[in-house]
Amino acid sequence: MKVLVVNAGSSSLKFMVFDHEGETYTMLAKGNLERIGLAEPNLIYQRGSEAKTEERVVAPDHAVAMQVLCHKLVDPACGVLKGLDEVEAIGHRVVHGGETFTSPVVVNGEVKAKIDACAALAPLHNPPNLLGITACEEAFPGVPNVAVFDTAFHQTMDPSAYLYAVPRELYEEHGIRKYGFHGTSHKFVYGAACEYLGLDPATAKIITCHLGNGSSLAAVDGGKVLDTTMGMTPLAGLVMGTRSGNVDAGVVIYLIKHLGMSVDEVDTILNKKSGLLGLGGRSDMREIIEAKKTDPHARQAFASFIHRLAGYIGAYYTILGGADAIVLTGGIGENSLPSREALLGRLGALGCHLDPEANQVMGKARIISTPESALTALVMPTNEELMIAMETTALIH
Amino acid sequence: MKVLVVNAGSSSLKFMVFDHEGETYTMLAKGNLERIGLAEPNLIYQRGSEAKTEERVVAPDHAVAMQVLCHKLVDPACGVLKGLDEVEAIGHRVVHGGETFTSPVVVNGEVKAKIDACAALAPLHNPPNLLGITACEEAFPGVPNVAVFDTAFHQTMDPSAYLYAVPRELYEEHGIRKYGFHGTSHKFVYGAACEYLGLDPATAKIITCHLGNGSSLAAVDGGKVLDTTMGMTPLAGLVMGTRSGNVDAGVVIYLIKHLGMSVDEVDTILNKKSGLLGLGGRSDMREIIEAKKTDPHARQAFASFIHRLAGYIGAYYTILGGADAIVLTGGIGENSLPSREALLGRLGALGCHLDPEANQVMGKARIISTPESALTALVMPTNEELMIAMETTALIH
Repeated sequence: MKVLVVNAGSSSLKFMVFDHEGETYTMLAKGNLERIGLAEPNLIYQRGSEAKTEERVVAPDHAVAMQVLCHKLVDPACGVLKGLDEVEAIGHRVVHGGETFTSPVVVNGEVKAKIDACAALAPLHNPPNLLGITACEEAFPGVPNVAVFDTAFHQTMDPSAYLYAVPRELYEEHGIRKYGFHGTSHKFVYGAACEYLGLDPATAKIITCHLGNGSSLAAVDGGKVLDTTMGMTPLAGLVMGTRSGNVDAGVVIYLIKHLGMSVDEVDTILNKKSGLLGLGGRSDMREIIEAKKTDPHARQAFASFIHRLAGYIGAYYTILGGADAIVLTGGIGENSLPSREALLGRLGALGCHLDPEANQVMGKARIISTPESALTALVMPTNEELMIAMETTALIH
Repeated sequence: MKVLVVNAGSSSLKFMVFDHEGETYTMLAKGNLERIGLAEPNLIYQRGSEAKTEERVVAPDHAVAMQVLCHKLVDPACGVLKGLDEVEAIGHRVVHGGETFTSPVVVNGEVKAKIDACAALAPLHNPPNLLGITACEEAFPGVPNVAVFDTAFHQTMDPSAYLYAVPRELYEEHGIRKYGFHGTSHKFVYGAACEYLGLDPATAKIITCHLGNGSSLAAVDGGKVLDTTMGMTPLAGLVMGTRSGNVDAGVVIYLIKHLGMSVDEVDTILNKKSGLLGLGGRSDMREIIEAKKTDPHARQAFASFIHRLAGYIGAYYTILGGADAIVLTGGIGENSLPSREALLGRLGALGCHLDPEANQVMGKARIISTPESALTALVMPTNEELMIAMETTALIH
């Protein structure tokens, strides 16, 4: 059974094709059609483990972009399908499912209307996600589309975690609450970590740390999320590449009332000019780490990142009532040795100690805490596309 | 030596008179002249442990209010001074010392100008604090006035704790950073706890929890603050009586951009209509606890309060690298048995376990964790006025 996974952004169409047999998923091809609707759209494509190719294409909108992708997938020279009818299911990443969607769902007209209704909470993401779905409906008539939501895993939270302490009617009438994001990744690495560590997913207590350009943690107890760091929007929580994470709401008010900024300026500053970039002049953790050898601002930005991260791990350890493991994933979690070293250097009080040799791992599953550690630290690569493929086939079967 | 302590608000003048001999401070009188500049100003006054009295007074402004207070203090029938010249020093609570003031300071013209310059950060507090100082300068010519800042203790924080991850120029040009508040209380209970527990204040690691209508925690390591929950303003951090504590900055942006609220409305909602009041319909913890027997909203508000509090304690335990004790103070910390019971019920992973019998204490110092607990929980009444008196005399001597 062939499964197509689609992650549609405002000007991009990321995709992955899997072959699913029994318990096995084999990635056949992946790529990204970028700059849709802009000048010089570009198709990046890779079959299996072959070399990546790039070519200029015509893609004025998502529907045409999907046609371009379909031609590629059935191209006898470089494709992976004999015909489009080989595709039996399509899984879509959808960012915001609000409170409506607590698990993946087969798309129909009603579902599309509800995803559209959630767009107020994710105006940059849900509309292009819907464009991707519509393009697939046209290109693959009769093939089921499954929506897999970034927020769904976190819908297991209790009100004491997801409600802000604001007037209750803001929640009841306007849906203002913590939703959390990266849910597909948190769920994937939770399951993968349980398997790797031999823990029962019905009882394992794990702090999943998705650390990339956007970062979030989740405290997961037996598959139920007790808390997560992102909020109603992906702005809250940790220090990120360009996002501030937590700031005093009084700061937002101050910027507008006393410094005369517009709300749009504040929005742009906190989402695009803050985080590592705002403090340290670079948004990429690799550049921060390189720069901190000589630049005190980069060094300070790194210290802020670690300080807040260590604090949240302590918070989640406590509300979980102790944890079996912390799991590190995402670009930073999987690959940034200095970040992991600095982080574990702050977790001694929780009984988590770095094994420096094990920490040399990049992009592969490995325990990086010492065998004596009471709290295990595990590096586990995430694979959101695979998780979407798994959720999709589970629902279709 | 007689010391007057003054806490001047926009329409109130709280005061306490101490007699200081050697190491001992004896409270001679205390009270509050309230409704200054409003209809029917009222003087609440209590000498020693005698009964409280109340009387209508004339107090159109802080200067006249101070005269009224002076008359009272030397009144042969109920006063505590033979003459005003007995007062050798006056200590003032000043809310915001910005980055200028890291410790108490004797007030002169330059200091007053600097306190005024910090008023942009605390527009509701610093101006009346200055009115109180000026009134004392007039009423007690030649007597030194000492300003004791709510923010000073937290000036020991490192940049990784006090900087928000926003563009660095917002800090450098506009002073946007975490300042923290309740510093006088945190410092007082840190010292008192060290004494009570026989810990060396140069090395003790304590999480001080000031829990009242406004609440904040501090992680204190050898007298140095590693982090605190309030921010640039007293809005951030824990769930409070009417303040939200932490919310996603994206929520503030959403309320303005998508719900069309003005920034002043948002300010009022988050500061005055949120917290326990917003979630549970009552701002007073005693009422929440009474109501939660029958009202699920009150029960949920209480759960939110405990959830966030427990998380912060875990965060601070971790960044301290383990702690000797948590210290509970303020109205809730000193008196709310159900709050302490619920909190300690969440701290098992840190080795802190409730002694239910010890927890019956109200308003007195007592260890409420079991003797076997690896992390001690101590109830310790705060006394900000005494701390101000102590800081004042230490500076004058």
